[in-house]
Order: sequence, then structure tokens, then C-alpha cells
Amino acid sequence: MGVTETLCRYIVDTAYDDLPPEVIHEAKRALVNILGVGIGAAGHDSVDIVLDVCREVGGKPAFTVWGRKEKADLLFAALINGMAAHIFDFDDTHTTILHPSAPVSPVVFALGEQQGHSGKELLLGFVLGIETACRIANGVFPWHYEQGFHLTGTLGHFGAAAAAGKLLGLDLQTMTQALGLAATQAAGVCEMLGSMGKPFHPGKAAMNGLLAAMLVKKGFTSSKQVIEAHMGFARLFSPQYDFSKMIEGLGENYEIFNNSYKAFACGIVAQPSIDASIRLREKYSLQAGDIEAINCTVHPYTLLAMGKKTPRTGLEAKFSTYHCVAVGIIDGTAGEAQFSDERATDREVIGLRDKVTLIENPEMRKDEAIVEVRLKDGRVLKEHVEHAVGTQLNPMSDEQLNRKFREAASFTLPQEKIEALLDLIWHFEELPNLKEVAASICP
Amino acid sequence: MGVTETLCRYIVDTAYDDLPPEVIHEAKRALVNILGVGIGAAGHDSVDIVLDVCREVGGKPAFTVWGRKEKADLLFAALINGMAAHIFDFDDTHTTILHPSAPVSPVVFALGEQQGHSGKELLLGFVLGIETACRIANGVFPWHYEQGFHLTGTLGHFGAAAAAGKLLGLDLQTMTQALGLAATQAAGVCEMLGSMGKPFHPGKAAMNGLLAAMLVKKGFTSSKQVIEAHMGFARLFSPQYDFSKMIEGLGENYEIFNNSYKAFACGIVAQPSIDASIRLREKYSLQAGDIEAINCTVHPYTLLAMGKKTPRTGLEAKFSTYHCVAVGIIDGTAGEAQFSDERATDREVIGLRDKVTLIENPEMRKDEAIVEVRLKDGRVLKEHVEHAVGTQLNPMSDEQLNRKFREAASFTLPQEKIEALLDLIWHFEELPNLKEVAASICP
Repeated sequence: MGVTETLCRYIVDTAYDDLPPEVIHEAKRALVNILGVGIGAAGHDSVDIVLDVCREVGGKPAFTVWGRKEKADLLFAALINGMAAHIFDFDDTHTTILHPSAPVSPVVFALGEQQGHSGKELLLGFVLGIETACRIANGVFPWHYEQGFHLTGTLGHFGAAAAAGKLLGLDLQTMTQALGLAATQAAGVCEMLGSMGKPFHPGKAAMNGLLAAMLVKKGFTSSKQVIEAHMGFARLFSPQYDFSKMIEGLGENYEIFNNSYKAFACGIVAQPSIDASIRLREKYSLQAGDIEAINCTVHPYTLLAMGKKTPRTGLEAKFSTYHCVAVGIIDGTAGEAQFSDERATDREVIGLRDKVTLIENPEMRKDEAIVEVRLKDGRVLKEHVEHAVGTQLNPMSDEQLNRKFREAASFTLPQEKIEALLDLIWHFEELPNLKEVAASICP
Repeated sequence: MGVTETLCRYIVDTAYDDLPPEVIHEAKRALVNILGVGIGAAGHDSVDIVLDVCREVGGKPAFTVWGRKEKADLLFAALINGMAAHIFDFDDTHTTILHPSAPVSPVVFALGEQQGHSGKELLLGFVLGIETACRIANGVFPWHYEQGFHLTGTLGHFGAAAAAGKLLGLDLQTMTQALGLAATQAAGVCEMLGSMGKPFHPGKAAMNGLLAAMLVKKGFTSSKQVIEAHMGFARLFSPQYDFSKMIEGLGENYEIFNNSYKAFACGIVAQPSIDASIRLREKYSLQAGDIEAINCTVHPYTLLAMGKKTPRTGLEAKFSTYHCVAVGIIDGTAGEAQFSDERATDREVIGLRDKVTLIENPEMRKDEAIVEVRLKDGRVLKEHVEHAVGTQLNPMSDEQLNRKFREAASFTLPQEKIEALLDLIWHFEELPNLKEVAASICP
């Protein structure tokens, strides 16, 4: 049996009751994370633009756009929500650097609204979509990534089609062809980084994967072995690949456990320094005005990737560990709000940022940092973070995810809707359908 | 200046009056060819399926679907017409084996209907779309093709975006980004050959390229150097590439002249044998009943690719030079109608087909054949075709294209509409808009 068929047999045969409770719980954590950042980005210009095109040429606006009053048609809702989920660069990250929830979750929501699926059915589709995208990613990582493809685009197509196919009740023969039709639309190049083209990738993956499953459901034909075929996905898109990594332990190990949620809305190598700064603030009730100097000992990548000393905009601040440490101490957090142009040019933030020194130490891990604060009264406070919160070995707690959700969603939703929505997500398996979620997810 | 900008500057700066009359004429020939085969395939199951999805989730059905009474929304019209144009495998072929009109022409028609463009504006968009797709193809051929990508899918995206961008009036900065957003959707693997996934490629290229230009027009951002960037199209999609082939002679040489129209609805290597058979029929009023044996001397590829001795279906007959020669003599043509299941199992056709012998000769060219017919009365008739009609060195005449159009379009259109439409296409530059074409192109 080829790898495409093996994966599809698993997708088709797996029922909700086959999923261990820990997987269900992790899926809800992933939803809390992705919906928060997706809702938060709903006001972005790129969302306005796609909504405008949808109004001009799209179908009946019957499907929810997270965090917006406007609705969109089924395919555009998948596109817009998948894009919004990736705009803050604050969604989840699989060990392959695939961001799996952004292309998969919008398909689950769009079809859920169309077909009236229960929370259990939707969680199952979501888990299987993530599993499919991440497993195929495992088999082409790191070559596909190093080649320059944006995995969230290319592999997102498979995840979206798998989730859509499961929710549409495809059988083995049609499921293989849905993956086939998804693969032959798979796209996304890393040259898009830094433009709206990057979050466009998971949006388009969601739209295309959904379209693939819908077409195949109605009889459209495609290949049944698209991953392994000579002219298929793996050989064409990755100089090397390993099919065994796509299928070993299917149904025993779950890739959703290899997926983590960033605690702070910036590059991964600044996360331990921010974590340490916030811990110091909380332990010692630190005030910016009392501080004379801050030394951060970090992995060399931190200076390389996040070493911008004097950021002038919010976007530049995302690449400045100096700024990150300053807002960590002043604001006690580093969510999207801490990376506005206002915060980047705030006098107090700039004053503290200028007191930060980065010391590189190749013996530190990338998820590790030591932050030493020298106070004006002569005391020295020190915090050693072994594994930053939100990384593989120190995942965010449910409560930390709630806080991240509240901060991100508050860009567009009022407090009472935020709390109602959080409650619904944590009880997702009890939902008869998405009606209550849809009511809470829009302002 | 990078290759992306160079190409885009040409697209943006070129006006209708810059096009030589021969280019305009060739563009009209390409339209006669693509519209005929697109209209002819309008009744195919795959068209029904996509129309069904469009009805379910698409927008206002205001745009023409060639050969159908139903209409579709702007993006789905581009998808469906692009797909239909490639269903018969009877569309045009550039020297790179790209089929450029299928992804480009539907964009021209959809936007033309939406924006009310004149025939001249539409011809300009069509020529520039073809030029763009074929030039980028030149620069990645043969490596991209040999890798296993379906150029009509991948490169079709660039052609569609260029045509759409021109018709939407993009400037240099936005045109480069439209190509960027098209490139990051570029997809299509040759594993789809033999399924509906293959004609899906130019349809999706048309839809995606159009969407790219529409988004960029409204302010969506993307890369401005997607072809040549390190993480861009050329390096990721082709093991080797040559940028000079994309831009040399821009505005002097036109790729539309390196585009040819197949005379017969089957594989390219059977075309000279069919051509010779029809010539013999016409010269000598050949009757199948008078024939004792037929010997065809051909390039070895003919046996390899088209050597099926006893085809049982219309689709198998497309790979049988034996069948092709038989229908050429009996029907005097080899259009799509000659590759029905009925013709493949017709007693007279089978009787004549069994009298055909293929003799391979490595000294023959692929566009060359010698057909010798031995009659029951002892006479031997011989025809040597040096370059089959419809190949690079012996292009179809306008009248032959008209005949191909009439045969293909007659699958769905009545005679009077066919003639009206032909007349409109040959006078395309005089059209104030597409209204008359739209009225004639639907049954």
C-alpha cells in the first residue's frame, strides 16, 4: 500500500472515540491559540482587501469571518480566516516549522457552519487535518523547507483537504483523490516573507484544500497516489524525502503534541529573554525607573535574528530583543499590542531598551536565557530561564493560553464575547453545532 | 533591473498599436483554436461538476461559460473555461510544451465581460499574457518540464496574472507584485495526467492569476522580484534556468509565433500519418472497401507513444495510430468526434485499422510520415508528408482552423451560432465589447 493510501485509510477509518482525551484537550488548546490570533488580526488591511474582492465577485455571504461583522462565502471565508490566523506570526508551530492550524481550522469552521457538524465531528476533522499536514511535513523536512518552500502554504493544502474530506464523508478512493487534487494546487514560496503574500499562503491552502474535497465529493477525478508517484508531490517538491516518517506510528503518536504555541508575538529566539524579564518583574515588582542596566546572556542566533538595537516601527520592534525585554518589564507581556508603532517609539520603552545589553554565548540553547538586572540601589536581580514558556519543553499552560487569547482577541471583540467564546472552545466537544461560536466570534 | 521588472515594464508599456499586424492575426488564430475546443468540451462531466460547486458556493452567475446556457461568477468562469479549453487535449502548444491559451484566454473573456473592454484591449491582454507565460517557460525549459511539472499549470499562472494585470491597468510596481502573487500560487504536477486534474491546471491558473491581479489592484502586497529571488520561482521550481531566455528580444520577437495548433485530436506523433491518409483520400477518392493493406513508415516514437493496436474505447483510440489512419481515410478527418467509443468500436473502422502496419524508421522526423496504400486492384498509392499540418513548419491555414472550429464547436452550438462566432473572432479588433461574442458562444 502506498503512503497516500495509508494516510487516507487512517483519515477515513478514525472516529472521534479513537482519539485519546489528551489529544482532544490539545486540539482545544490549539483552537484557543489560533482563534485568538485570528480574531485579533481581523482588522488588518489585507482582510479588508480580500473581503472587498469577495463582495465584488464572491457568493452569498453566509459564513463567519472571525472578528468581523461582515460575512463571506464558503471558499472566501476559508481564505480570509486562514490568512488572518497567520497575520500576527503568532500562530502555532510544528517541529517542522509548519504552522498547521492556520490552513486547517478555517476549513473546519466553514464546513461546520455549512453542514451543521457537531463539536466532536469538527474536533475530529481538525485533529486529522493537522495530523495529515504535519506527517507529510515530517517526510519532506528539512529538505523541502531548506529549498525555500513555505510549508504552511504547500503542506497546508493536504491538511485542509484531509479535514474537508473527513467532514464531507469521503471514502478511501475519494479521499486519496482529494489529497491528489490538493497536492496539484500546493504552492507557496518563502520569497513572500515580509509581504501580505505570506499569510495569504495558509488562507489559499484552506480555500484550495476545501475546493479539492468538494470537487472530488461530486465525482471529480485525480491521482490516487500523489505523494509517492514519480511525477507526484514528494519528488517534485523536495530534493529528499522519507515516506516512513509520514506513516510510522499512525494512530499511536499524534503530531499535535509536536506543535507549540508562542507566548510572545515576535521571533522565537527572543522568547526566553522576555520570559525571564516578565518573571523578574513579577518576583520583584520591578519598575523601569529603578533600573540602571540589563544584561541578557543568549544564544548567538538571538543577536543574529533579533538584534535590532533601535527599532523605529512596530514591525522592526518584532526583530529587537532590546525592545522585547523593555516591554516585558514595563508591560509584563509581549503580545501584538506591544509591537505597535506607538510602543516602538514610546519614550519610557526607548529609555529602558537603551539600557539592555545582549551577550552572546554559544553554549546557551536557543530556548534559554539569563537576564541580570542591576538596580540603581545597587542590587542585582537574576533570572535563568532554561526553556522559555511556549517552547517544546515548557509549553504554555491553559491559563497562559487564555491570557494570550484575551489579549489578542481584545483587538476586535468586547470582553463579554471573549469570555463566552473561551468557555465555548474549552467545551467544544459538547457543542451541538457552531451557532453559539459564530455568535460570539463576531463583534 | 531584474527579470521580473523587465518583463513587467514591457507588459505595462506595450500598447495595442505596438503589436505588428501579424501578431494580431496570430492572436485571432489562437482564439479560433482555443474557443473551438473549449466550446466543444463544454458538456464534459468535469464542467458539470465545477458548475455545480459554483452554484452551491459561488457568486452572481453573470459571466459566460463557453458552450453552456448556465453562467458562473467571475472567478469560476475563469476556472471552468480554462479547464474546458484543455479537456480535449486539442488546444495550442508552445515549443516548451506549454499550452498557453487555456490559462490566459478565460481571464481575457471574464474581465472583458466585467469591465466592458474593447476587442483591441482584449487582444492586447491576450498577446501579453501568452508572451509572459511563454517567455518564463523558455527560461525554465526543459528542466522544469523534465522535473515533472505541468507547465500549463505552473506557468499559466504568470500568463493569467499578466493578462489580468494589463486589463486592470496595473502600473509597474503593482504588476510585479501581481506576478509575485501568481507565482506563489503556481502549481500543477504531471501525476494528474489521465485524470480531470490535468485540465483543472489551466483553469486554476486562470482563476488564481486573475485573483492575484485583482488583489494587488486593491493594495495587496507581494514580492517585486519573484522570478529571480533566491526563495523565488526559478530556483525553487527548476533545477536550472536561464533568465536571458525570458527577456531577450522583448517586443521584437513574439512567442505567439512559436505556438502551434494541432490538426487532429490525438497525440502529436500520429499527426503526419493522419495528414497523409487524408491527402490520399482526397487525391484518389479512396474508399475503405477498396483497400487491401496500408503501410506507414514513421519515427520510432510513433510506435512507442501511439502504438495501441486494438483500442477498445475512444480514449484508447487517441493512442492508436492504427485507428487514426483508419478514421482519416473513412471520415476524412480526426477531430474529437473520431475518438468516441462508437468510432473506436465501429466495424468498418476496425476492419480498416487491422490492415494498417507501422514500420519504424529512426531516420524519419517526428513530424514526417510515408503512407503507402495497396488497393485490391493492385495499384499502390503513396503519400510522403514532410511536415504534418499543424506542426511548426507547416502551420494550419486559417481555413483549416475554421474547419477545426466548426467540428469542435458543433458538439454544443448550432450551425448559425458557429458561423456568427467565427465571423466575430476574425474581426475581434473591431468589437466595441464582448456582448455579441457572449450571445453567440452559448447555445
